[in-house]
Amino acid sequence: MRVLGIDPGLRNMGWGIIDVAGPRMTHVANGVCHSLASDDLATRLLSLFDQMTHVVRTYAPDCAAVEQTFVNKDAVATLKLGQARAVALLVPAQAGLPIGEYAPNAVKKTVVGVGHAAKQQVEHMIKLQLPGAKLAGPDAVDALAIAITHSYHAQSSSRLADAIKKAAS
Amino acid sequence: MRVLGIDPGLRNMGWGIIDVAGPRMTHVANGVCHSLASDDLATRLLSLFDQMTHVVRTYAPDCAAVEQTFVNKDAVATLKLGQARAVALLVPAQAGLPIGEYAPNAVKKTVVGVGHAAKQQVEHMIKLQLPGAKLAGPDAVDALAIAITHSYHAQSSSRLADAIKKAAS
Repeated sequence: MRVLGIDPGLRNMGWGIIDVAGPRMTHVANGVCHSLASDDLATRLLSLFDQMTHVVRTYAPDCAAVEQTFVNKDAVATLKLGQARAVALLVPAQAGLPIGEYAPNAVKKTVVGVGHAAKQQVEHMIKLQLPGAKLAGPDAVDALAIAITHSYHAQSSSRLADAIKKAAS
Repeated sequence: MRVLGIDPGLRNMGWGIIDVAGPRMTHVANGVCHSLASDDLATRLLSLFDQMTHVVRTYAPDCAAVEQTFVNKDAVATLKLGQARAVALLVPAQAGLPIGEYAPNAVKKTVVGVGHAAKQQVEHMIKLQLPGAKLAGPDAVDALAIAITHSYHAQSSSRLADAIKKAAS
């Protein structure tokens, strides 16, 4: 199973792709899509859309996982993030991929073991789990963490489904 | 010039198209795209994206205008609206159309004459300006009002550009 993780943002949108086969996880690629603050919003969204579509076409993932957005007191920031997040959801939806959504704390809890881990701890664990991966920056690290979180959750749901099937047969 | 106006919303996205030739304005079409609250967010965004892409392909507008979003105290509502608005901007940007953005008060001021007009007043003026148009609902009315606002602004900017060119020659 090939998993695409996306950390949505209007200026920097991180993405990370891993291959998962049972307990084995291998790094495929990671990167950050950028949009220019000097461009108008429609141009920025289209640019992110095109870059993410290119990523999906190049690596052909089987499923995607997107970080859930914090709504905070800064309404303008929330609006911007919402717009970037729409692109992060639209691109895999257009490719017909199933999409998981995970809260930032759930991602940290899965990857590091605690919900309030520091950024450096997350990066450290990603380097341990995906040795040799050249990381494109903090947004790409977050995206790989989201992909790993999805693979854990997808595998435990599928084990659960198998157990239920077995018990019923 | 054919103008597409869009009133973004996640549940209901209004659209309206008018043809403008000098002072003459004619109604082409209007409607409302829907997404189901029971579907997940990615499915809803993709559905709106596909419906709006179909509208752009069917009517081939020359430019688009989108209502600016109010950021309010309800952060969850702001986030939803931001996600819907991303679709409203992405679709015309993907078709290569120039996009104008107008605040709700600017739209009311252009169409009715005052910034704090009631919904009924806007509908009344749309019916006067586009006689015979069958209106698909309040979101479609707002979208036509946005299209009319854009045609006024585009025409006055073009007149201004002409006057500057004339004065310089």
